[in-house]
Amino acid sequence: MTPALIIVDMIKDNIETDKHLGISREAKSILPDLVGFINFFREKGFPVVYANDSFLKNDFLFRGKMKEHAVRGTSGTQVIDIIFPKQNDIIINKLRFSAFYKTDLDQILRRLGIDTVFVVGISTMWCVFLTATDALSNDFYTIIVEDLAACHKKEIHDKFVNLYKNFPLFPIFRFLTSHEAVDMINKGKNAYTTG
Amino acid sequence: MTPALIIVDMIKDNIETDKHLGISREAKSILPDLVGFINFFREKGFPVVYANDSFLKNDFLFRGKMKEHAVRGTSGTQVIDIIFPKQNDIIINKLRFSAFYKTDLDQILRRLGIDTVFVVGISTMWCVFLTATDALSNDFYTIIVEDLAACHKKEIHDKFVNLYKNFPLFPIFRFLTSHEAVDMINKGKNAYTTG
Amino acid sequence: MTPALIIVDMIKDNIETDKHLGISREAKSILPDLVGFINFFREKGFPVVYANDSFLKNDFLFRGKMKEHAVRGTSGTQVIDIIFPKQNDIIINKLRFSAFYKTDLDQILRRLGIDTVFVVGISTMWCVFLTATDALSNDFYTIIVEDLAACHKKEIHDKFVNLYKNFPLFPIFRFLTSHEAVDMINKGKNAYTTG
Amino acid sequence: MTPALIIVDMIKDNIETDKHLGISREAKSILPDLVGFINFFREKGFPVVYANDSFLKNDFLFRGKMKEHAVRGTSGTQVIDIIFPKQNDIIINKLRFSAFYKTDLDQILRRLGIDTVFVVGISTMWCVFLTATDALSNDFYTIIVEDLAACHKKEIHDKFVNLYKNFPLFPIFRFLTSHEAVDMINKGKNAYTTG
Repeated sequence: MTPALIIVDMIKDNIETDKHLGISREAKSILPDLVGFINFFREKGFPVVYANDSFLKNDFLFRGKMKEHAVRGTSGTQVIDIIFPKQNDIIINKLRFSAFYKTDLDQILRRLGIDTVFVVGISTMWCVFLTATDALSNDFYTIIVEDLAACHKKEIHDKFVNLYKNFPLFPIFRFLTSHEAVDMINKGKNAYTTG
Repeated sequence: MTPALIIVDMIKDNIETDKHLGISREAKSILPDLVGFINFFREKGFPVVYANDSFLKNDFLFRGKMKEHAVRGTSGTQVIDIIFPKQNDIIINKLRFSAFYKTDLDQILRRLGIDTVFVVGISTMWCVFLTATDALSNDFYTIIVEDLAACHKKEIHDKFVNLYKNFPLFPIFRFLTSHEAVDMINKGKNAYTTG
Repeated sequence: MTPALIIVDMIKDNIETDKHLGISREAKSILPDLVGFINFFREKGFPVVYANDSFLKNDFLFRGKMKEHAVRGTSGTQVIDIIFPKQNDIIINKLRFSAFYKTDLDQILRRLGIDTVFVVGISTMWCVFLTATDALSNDFYTIIVEDLAACHKKEIHDKFVNLYKNFPLFPIFRFLTSHEAVDMINKGKNAYTTG
Repeated sequence: MTPALIIVDMIKDNIETDKHLGISREAKSILPDLVGFINFFREKGFPVVYANDSFLKNDFLFRGKMKEHAVRGTSGTQVIDIIFPKQNDIIINKLRFSAFYKTDLDQILRRLGIDTVFVVGISTMWCVFLTATDALSNDFYTIIVEDLAACHKKEIHDKFVNLYKNFPLFPIFRFLTSHEAVDMINKGKNAYTTG
């Protein structure tokens, strides 16, 4: 297995203030373990991708209840300090939910020989899930690390995970805990052969 | 409002046999009302799009538990007879879950002046939802018609709908019943101004 | 080398009538050798792709001097009889010049293990070239078979080929005659190592 | 007409050194008039887009004669000082020739209400042309400003322009001098109605 890690939307406008999405508290709750997980990928020499909301001014997405935030070119689109990207990390400024939507991430990952993608961050039900399903669509084995993803409420996150577990796409699309993920990578097992 | 209807994966391999996804019974349960809804769109002169699974032989997607089905070029990818496409309908053969994934549907819809997309079919949690979120990503007001979409179990469908209702993207992304949808279109209301 | 052949726009509206593009005579001139080249690919068991113009009614492209033709759903978009596709060939209905524009051809070719693409058909300067450059953009070694491509005038075709030969992208993007192409494939040489 | 200007590949690695493409001298020759043309767009309040090569380390494109250059994350991918972007300009880091290849530029331009695109920069035959044809494919009226585009040799540039003038796609795809372009914009004429 040659895995990559995609960290979704852990940016200042989503986490340092709570005004936009109300997801700040839950997002912060995954941080301690997320730091360790990112370090694990770095130590192994596997790519770390940050996929960050990068909306337009007066974006179509702001026509609903969602307030304007994460506008391209503003500091609010930057990754929060505690997990700030390092020099060789890959930064994807994404216009929409998925890290693959109108970006070159698929081609970058193939160039690097990646076959398996681990997705973490916020929110589980939108940008994490839609990044994961696009990874799968692009023929990558795809794992959402369930304890490193968060919704605005823990209860909602849990309901979502329960709803999508054990679907026909298992195990090419699946959920794992961070411990299970580390174990799988350490053993060099393939996502699709692991029970 | 200039709406289009996208009917997702109501094809022979998904519905006429029950061997692949186990969704046959639930899919059939939406058919009577779906027929009427499609006719409503035709009578109004609004575009009807059929987005059909069109997988490859030995497709990556079949590496999990999901059995090979809906293979491109086979009759199993055809829409079931009762709602078979008519001459001016738009047929999209989709490689993956979303009707917009590596297809020209976005450009076709814009060319037709469409601003709002109604999504129906199967399954609610995968191809219907992922088509809907891609429609939204492409700046279309997007409505999943909740009684015209189905999962393998009604209970799962209901849980999914409850989970995604009343999110910050409301009402540019929303659920409506078919009655509410017909009412909205008849009144010429815009998706985003309707309470 | 695992090559695929992409045959561009050899359709009825472009060749059987001369009213649209004035390219009929030149297109027919490549047919005898093209038949042999296609057969060579079939005998070797390598994929044959037909990429066909499939424009929309009132398409944006018809706002210039180019008359409406090759409209999606009409018989004019079908490949001409003499090189009509066989059962296992791949048909791509393309909205624009390139066979890769909003299609899933890139993913199909990767799934088949293709590393090298040979492009033939009409017209050299537009759909053949733009299909070839998109193939290259998608990390396929790319060869335009110069005697199996045509413009509305032979002189223009020759000028184009001369202009693009020996560029810095050589030899990952290059021109070969059909004899050179057959020779390369027979010898199993790689596009990029061949002098 | 609501036009946007796309400036292609006027970056340090292409112009400040001559080692990669040998296009430095010709690229510099268009600079004086290009400065004025960019200012004209700024004064009118129309969007200015910089589309810059942003290749990968060990990119597939470097397997031919073309030396590694313009690698993502290096200073060589930055626009040269004399026409350095200003705050509200749009920066597109492009993996391949076209500014639209796996980028969100099409959606950004539509959001801004753009209907017509002017393309300038280097090189005429590759990134300028392939950006222009992709703009056209995305239903934008497209103009290559012929005296503000350059190849490695003026003679090659002229041959290219002569080859592509007066094609069936005229005038939705066309060449204009910078004087003609300024005149057209000042008069508010539409690209497609201008003789």
